[in-house]
Amino acid sequence: MNEALFTANNLWILVATTLVFIMHLGFASLEAGFVQSKNVVNILFKNSMIISIGLLTYFMYGFNLMYPGVNEGGFFGFAGFGLSLPEGDLGDITYAEGAYTYWTDFIFQGMFAATAATIVSGAVAERVKLNAFLIFAFIFLSIVYPVTGMWKWGGGWLDAAGFYDFAGSTLVHAVGGWAALAAVMLLGPRNGKYSDGHIKPIPGHSMPFAALGVFLLWFGWFGFNGGSVLSANPLSVSLVFVTTSLAGAAGAFTAFVTSWFLFKSHDLSMVLNGILGGLVAITAGADQMMPMEAIMIGGVAGILIPFSVVLFDKLKLDDPVGATSVHLVCGVWGTLAVGIFGSLAGWHQLWVQLYGSLSVGLFSFSMAFLVIWVLKKTIGIRVSPEAEKYGLDVAEHNMRAYYQ
Amino acid sequence: MNEALFTANNLWILVATTLVFIMHLGFASLEAGFVQSKNVVNILFKNSMIISIGLLTYFMYGFNLMYPGVNEGGFFGFAGFGLSLPEGDLGDITYAEGAYTYWTDFIFQGMFAATAATIVSGAVAERVKLNAFLIFAFIFLSIVYPVTGMWKWGGGWLDAAGFYDFAGSTLVHAVGGWAALAAVMLLGPRNGKYSDGHIKPIPGHSMPFAALGVFLLWFGWFGFNGGSVLSANPLSVSLVFVTTSLAGAAGAFTAFVTSWFLFKSHDLSMVLNGILGGLVAITAGADQMMPMEAIMIGGVAGILIPFSVVLFDKLKLDDPVGATSVHLVCGVWGTLAVGIFGSLAGWHQLWVQLYGSLSVGLFSFSMAFLVIWVLKKTIGIRVSPEAEKYGLDVAEHNMRAYYQ
Amino acid sequence: MNEALFTANNLWILVATTLVFIMHLGFASLEAGFVQSKNVVNILFKNSMIISIGLLTYFMYGFNLMYPGVNEGGFFGFAGFGLSLPEGDLGDITYAEGAYTYWTDFIFQGMFAATAATIVSGAVAERVKLNAFLIFAFIFLSIVYPVTGMWKWGGGWLDAAGFYDFAGSTLVHAVGGWAALAAVMLLGPRNGKYSDGHIKPIPGHSMPFAALGVFLLWFGWFGFNGGSVLSANPLSVSLVFVTTSLAGAAGAFTAFVTSWFLFKSHDLSMVLNGILGGLVAITAGADQMMPMEAIMIGGVAGILIPFSVVLFDKLKLDDPVGATSVHLVCGVWGTLAVGIFGSLAGWHQLWVQLYGSLSVGLFSFSMAFLVIWVLKKTIGIRVSPEAEKYGLDVAEHNMRAYYQ
Repeated sequence: MNEALFTANNLWILVATTLVFIMHLGFASLEAGFVQSKNVVNILFKNSMIISIGLLTYFMYGFNLMYPGVNEGGFFGFAGFGLSLPEGDLGDITYAEGAYTYWTDFIFQGMFAATAATIVSGAVAERVKLNAFLIFAFIFLSIVYPVTGMWKWGGGWLDAAGFYDFAGSTLVHAVGGWAALAAVMLLGPRNGKYSDGHIKPIPGHSMPFAALGVFLLWFGWFGFNGGSVLSANPLSVSLVFVTTSLAGAAGAFTAFVTSWFLFKSHDLSMVLNGILGGLVAITAGADQMMPMEAIMIGGVAGILIPFSVVLFDKLKLDDPVGATSVHLVCGVWGTLAVGIFGSLAGWHQLWVQLYGSLSVGLFSFSMAFLVIWVLKKTIGIRVSPEAEKYGLDVAEHNMRAYYQ
Repeated sequence: MNEALFTANNLWILVATTLVFIMHLGFASLEAGFVQSKNVVNILFKNSMIISIGLLTYFMYGFNLMYPGVNEGGFFGFAGFGLSLPEGDLGDITYAEGAYTYWTDFIFQGMFAATAATIVSGAVAERVKLNAFLIFAFIFLSIVYPVTGMWKWGGGWLDAAGFYDFAGSTLVHAVGGWAALAAVMLLGPRNGKYSDGHIKPIPGHSMPFAALGVFLLWFGWFGFNGGSVLSANPLSVSLVFVTTSLAGAAGAFTAFVTSWFLFKSHDLSMVLNGILGGLVAITAGADQMMPMEAIMIGGVAGILIPFSVVLFDKLKLDDPVGATSVHLVCGVWGTLAVGIFGSLAGWHQLWVQLYGSLSVGLFSFSMAFLVIWVLKKTIGIRVSPEAEKYGLDVAEHNMRAYYQ
Repeated sequence: MNEALFTANNLWILVATTLVFIMHLGFASLEAGFVQSKNVVNILFKNSMIISIGLLTYFMYGFNLMYPGVNEGGFFGFAGFGLSLPEGDLGDITYAEGAYTYWTDFIFQGMFAATAATIVSGAVAERVKLNAFLIFAFIFLSIVYPVTGMWKWGGGWLDAAGFYDFAGSTLVHAVGGWAALAAVMLLGPRNGKYSDGHIKPIPGHSMPFAALGVFLLWFGWFGFNGGSVLSANPLSVSLVFVTTSLAGAAGAFTAFVTSWFLFKSHDLSMVLNGILGGLVAITAGADQMMPMEAIMIGGVAGILIPFSVVLFDKLKLDDPVGATSVHLVCGVWGTLAVGIFGSLAGWHQLWVQLYGSLSVGLFSFSMAFLVIWVLKKTIGIRVSPEAEKYGLDVAEHNMRAYYQ
């Protein structure tokens, strides 16, 4: 391949890597903003450690579990521990048809890995034990994420079946969302959230940080979706930028209108989650849609968000940041939407999208449930009522987020 | 054109798009920091919706109003609703002499569009009715921004006349600034701001958020100005990076010195607005200046800022974030500076810059005045005194920005 | 050289410039978060002015001091005031073997320059006089940084001696760290910090801002290290991304474990500084290490951080943000690590790394000590006890960081 084109392609994946990295700051800010001030240090600590655990496990074995390079069409494969450069002179290494290097491949995919566990972090906030969560995150990132990822992106059985998930509505967002659902079910709601048949609102402590997080996530999504083209192909990347942005914009708009009709107020948290819902939903088919289809997919996501938040509350599934509504509900919707809109639309594709989505969801939910259930029966997963009352920051970290 | 060069050029405009996007977070942070804590949710809500409205209207008709593609030299043109790919095989689409794709063009310009309305958002903060503002933003983004933009960038009459505005000192910043002025005039000052002949300082609630906003805006300006080269041409883009940065640095320095002489204090908000003033001023001619000229243009802007803030307060034009000083005054200054410094300097050019600046200003001011006047006479543009006293967050959004 | 390759290479250095720029926001956020709320405006003011002073002095003479272009192997050189384009037609300028333009070179290096002084800003926080600090920063950026930079990167005597410092563990971080140590020694601890033989913890006022700062610094480090390849060479830049990220991840992990054993708590500030320590340490050899070596270098840095913080406190060297532990200790460690790990490892190289590190350290420490000592004896470097008690924001800036 042309050296200059290879350089430009590789450069884009690296720039996209930096954008995906900043999504970790987006998640940290969003979750910190949506929890009470007494639990902010805990959130920041979890999200810092998740990047560390995510990158280190992905280096040690995650990458080679997700991309075994053999075992096409299968359920499981492993190419060995650590990273091993493909054969050949160092300077000659080109990968994936010459679009980027082996190192680029690893670091871009490694940044993705950690995001799946971060999604869970928000849903279990304000009552989960730190050590239990870190053990869960370690196992989840070691097994669940790379194995389901392999099913499609590593050339496994779902890929062979024709399942389509461009940048991870299912493989990143719904995988995290299903695990979050399992965690929330086993963990139970925050004390006082659903007492006496009432749903007690527990507002987040800082809307500026929540908004900062959402804007940074949108910013990072240009790399998350745009980088998933796996080259700097001008037409594909620019189309992905357009569909991604319009879906986010549409999600904001319909969440605004829907929450106005439902709650008669201009609800900022719904608009923020509407943006995220639109972005999650377009992720599965961002390269397959025309602009108007992207607006419809994002727009439906923005409608789903307020209903979903109300529904989870009715089911007494307490999710302080709305992670299940955003990543699970809109992740499933976006995956199905690939069978409804765009160049792949059709009954057969819709069916494949459905069972692909359910297969991944079943595996992620069951594995997460199993791991967290074992943790619950052994070391415990929930802090004491006192710790919850006075905050995890003091109980687990011996410090507070804010001082004079 | 060479495929690799096309890829690199297109890649830069896409990366620049992400940088312009993050300016929306910059504006949101800056404005949130400069208002009282009781009005922060309102700011964040407005700025989230502006991106949504900006992108959706630009998709529906704004892009085709601004770049009608025909009607060279005219005042108005329209190429139809929605986006329509140019003719030819999808994979072959190249645009603008091969530097970027049609999709890239749309999304880069779409990110610009929304910034103009955001400028107004800061000036009317803390007392404007949300629905009135959103209707205004919708009309402004539908008509004023794309039509004045067409006059120059769409090949209209100002372009034919030789008017120069590289990246929008006039077409983005002053357009927004003139509309902000009209809005502030019709809206009146915040209650108590100018009572009994005194000017009451109403300090912003969070300097860290204000500073965060300014640094993010500078970060985004690399894409705003650098992307306006419309290719990755090494010499042009790198020169624009140098002039943009030096103008911002010079604006900080002269605002520091000037405000020291005027107020005898090290005034952080003046330094922050000095940076922004320098960046706004260099925007019209960032590709035409040598470094020392950029320093002079930015330096003058930094001197103008404190005087302008004092002047607007003397005129009882209450602008909580200084948007008119930054975007209107320095936008006009930067436009004129193209006739004074750099490769285009000359009496004729200065004259063209002056009447171009005034023409665009007259149109933007009149249209904004008309729209807001009609809104004032119909649905009203100002919240009740109670709502203003207790804050727009509770009155309009039924929530607060900060909780325990 | 191929025009497309030149364009891609140059583009990467410009994108890296934007990433290094955002490190200034990272430093500002980190330092603001780690100080008390009464000194936040002062931090933001200092960090805004440092960018301004850094860029303007680098334009006026710093660049030509650091890259004199002659005087190979020497201690000092100067190529004249201002920027002068190399000879030849503007459009033909290519530089550094065709990888980037002269303007690109200046602005990338200029962004680096200011970071060295910012490191000092954190260490002297909460008690330094603003005017004394700004004068120090001006002199430090005018002389110390460009001269020591020239010794290696400008082709001076350390370069001739075989000293290796890829992206500045010594030339940026330790240079700043040594100056911070001199400043802290001359300035003395904050009042009450070490009274009655006790070490009084003075917690930072906002952990969210501290964490925001660290994540932004990591984000920027992709440009700091990745851009130091000085081209977009796919293999080199991608390897640097991998080593940089893994070192940061390892630093977080070992700081977590070490501080657990030392303090029996999950210490967020140690994890955050562990990330930074890992990033500083890998900087000297980011292009020379394999992934496992990067993990070891970052991992050792994460162990050093808690011990170093305790040690400096035992020595009554009061550094509110831990700048000396992060930038000095880990900067020296990372410089030495180039002689221990990676493709340059060996006893001779280790010896060269040691005396290079000490030479630069000696010069930076002595010069900083001298300048600050003179300032102390003349205008004074420390605010009054009243100013320190009530905060520098009110004393120096006549405003507070937070209002209602």
